[in-house]
Amino acid sequence: MADERIIPVILSGGAGTRLWPLSRSANPKQLHRLGGETTMLQAAALRAADPTLFSAPMVVGSAALADAVEAQLRACGVEPAALILEPTPRNTAAAVALAAVEGGEALMLVMPSDHLVADVEAFRAAVRAGSAAARKGWLVTFGIRPEFAETGYGYIQRAEAIEPGVYRAERFVEKPDRATAERYLSEGCYDWNGGIFLFRADAMRAALERHAPDILEPVEQALAAANRDGNRWTPERSAFERARSESIDHAVMEKAERVGVVPVQMGWSDVGSWDALYAVGPGDAGGNVLRGEVEALDTRRSLVATEGPVVVTIGVEDLIVIATGDAVLVARRGESQRVKDAVELLKSRHSRSH
Amino acid sequence: MADERIIPVILSGGAGTRLWPLSRSANPKQLHRLGGETTMLQAAALRAADPTLFSAPMVVGSAALADAVEAQLRACGVEPAALILEPTPRNTAAAVALAAVEGGEALMLVMPSDHLVADVEAFRAAVRAGSAAARKGWLVTFGIRPEFAETGYGYIQRAEAIEPGVYRAERFVEKPDRATAERYLSEGCYDWNGGIFLFRADAMRAALERHAPDILEPVEQALAAANRDGNRWTPERSAFERARSESIDHAVMEKAERVGVVPVQMGWSDVGSWDALYAVGPGDAGGNVLRGEVEALDTRRSLVATEGPVVVTIGVEDLIVIATGDAVLVARRGESQRVKDAVELLKSRHSRSH
Repeated sequence: MADERIIPVILSGGAGTRLWPLSRSANPKQLHRLGGETTMLQAAALRAADPTLFSAPMVVGSAALADAVEAQLRACGVEPAALILEPTPRNTAAAVALAAVEGGEALMLVMPSDHLVADVEAFRAAVRAGSAAARKGWLVTFGIRPEFAETGYGYIQRAEAIEPGVYRAERFVEKPDRATAERYLSEGCYDWNGGIFLFRADAMRAALERHAPDILEPVEQALAAANRDGNRWTPERSAFERARSESIDHAVMEKAERVGVVPVQMGWSDVGSWDALYAVGPGDAGGNVLRGEVEALDTRRSLVATEGPVVVTIGVEDLIVIATGDAVLVARRGESQRVKDAVELLKSRHSRSH
Repeated sequence: MADERIIPVILSGGAGTRLWPLSRSANPKQLHRLGGETTMLQAAALRAADPTLFSAPMVVGSAALADAVEAQLRACGVEPAALILEPTPRNTAAAVALAAVEGGEALMLVMPSDHLVADVEAFRAAVRAGSAAARKGWLVTFGIRPEFAETGYGYIQRAEAIEPGVYRAERFVEKPDRATAERYLSEGCYDWNGGIFLFRADAMRAALERHAPDILEPVEQALAAANRDGNRWTPERSAFERARSESIDHAVMEKAERVGVVPVQMGWSDVGSWDALYAVGPGDAGGNVLRGEVEALDTRRSLVATEGPVVVTIGVEDLIVIATGDAVLVARRGESQRVKDAVELLKSRHSRSH
């Protein structure tokens, strides 16, 4: 009897400059312990480590991080079925295609490695709820109940139910303006697009073939000529480079016809900024979120995190303080979206630390 | 003809924990570039490097810092006549005695290595003004015109003039309370005690013999049995340890009879706190004092200094941010006196970084 379990596909290619100075291309966000005891990559792998539901994961990411990724997974008892090492970054559509081409008719669950999910049971229940539709060939997404009128996320509009807990996705909307986001929030039938996808690999291949053949075909060629060293597969570079760089949302999900959405409340955060990490908390009595060797004297409503240097704060409030061995960020809370600008400025002026 | 020039005696034994995390016992305040291009030690040496007025300096400090001290002095072209290496710290009276015992009848100018003096010409003019009285056997101090009712400094009360620009010192007052400090400020005949002393070495020895024989005699014995390796003199430890640990102000200056004071305005700061360093400035258009690799975006009235890590500030004001490779301080301006408390706390909780 075939293994009917779901293959987790962990996308680990991002760099996350909005979390500078912790997140760098050589040591990105998902390899850090932002939310607690485990790194975000480890948390993602453990989230999909229930052997009654999942088989061993595939990880898609850069060759430069392969050793770190494998070491982190092994440290939490996860042996990846494959590390698919992208010769160059080509966005999420090509990353999903790499997994789908290798997936036969298996169910696959694509998940980012750099999001936080507080309620793992709710996550797994949602995956179970979406499985029946996915087995029937639907491309299933997961919709996060919006908490505010966020303009930085994509939204999914729900239509009628197609299975218990699963709805037809009426449409995808990428990053709406403020007024539109507020309307979505009040209308109640829009969810945030959490970037998690459940599908039968052959259904995804069919959708790619129809809507994005300029991604699927180069990926197929790159895998046919891949270098396979144990569980490390390196697609052939020149073929892979021909794949169009596009998100899976734009390339497939917005255009495909049988797309479902499972609404889920699971304490999700993309931790897309230091303000978002502060919001995840939990804070102490002074409303502070402290990580690492920190002494916070007379400090209120602040995020203070360090990966090395001891940090002392005295008499401050509403600050974000992030320290690494070679860089320090001190920002007013609410201003952390500007970190990206600061990193650009550093790149233009200095030779390091970005 | 004897060399009538003044021997500078640079005291370099302090640790300066109020300037944590920059100042540590292993790398104290005076070895850092707090005020500009040169370290405070180098600035002190260069202040007394006019060869028409001064001969080569003696430096009194700890053996642990001897190499660093000598390297910094050589880097700015100063060859010390002697490095007198205290086997253990015994406060300023013993440090002054170490120099005075070796000074014959020369004029000596004792100066801390960890103060800033913006107007070097005013400093030298004051030294010249005090020389005549010092040659006559007076112990001459230098009085800094008070700018506010500081309770952390000693004060000197001026009496009648004894030479042009030199007054008899009526009395020394150590750290007055707030009301007393305010009275001193309004009365106008009190100056801050800047800890700089000009005297004939034999006059200081006589004063020590009369008022602090329990300091002079152990120091004489320690020097008689000193290990002398080139210009590095290490007083014999067991004798030196018997010297009473006391400030030169308490041990001698408050009690001696022929004490003079030269009032001087020379842009003096003891840089006793980060707030004091901010006050020395000069600030940029946003009122910021920035040192090292700093990007200050939308930042106002803040001191941001780094000895290594790149520091980015975004949308903050009235902050003190100090970064080294292994520690970071973020404090509200006006709170920097609490740094000492924070360092004590760190010592009690952690094993490093203090």
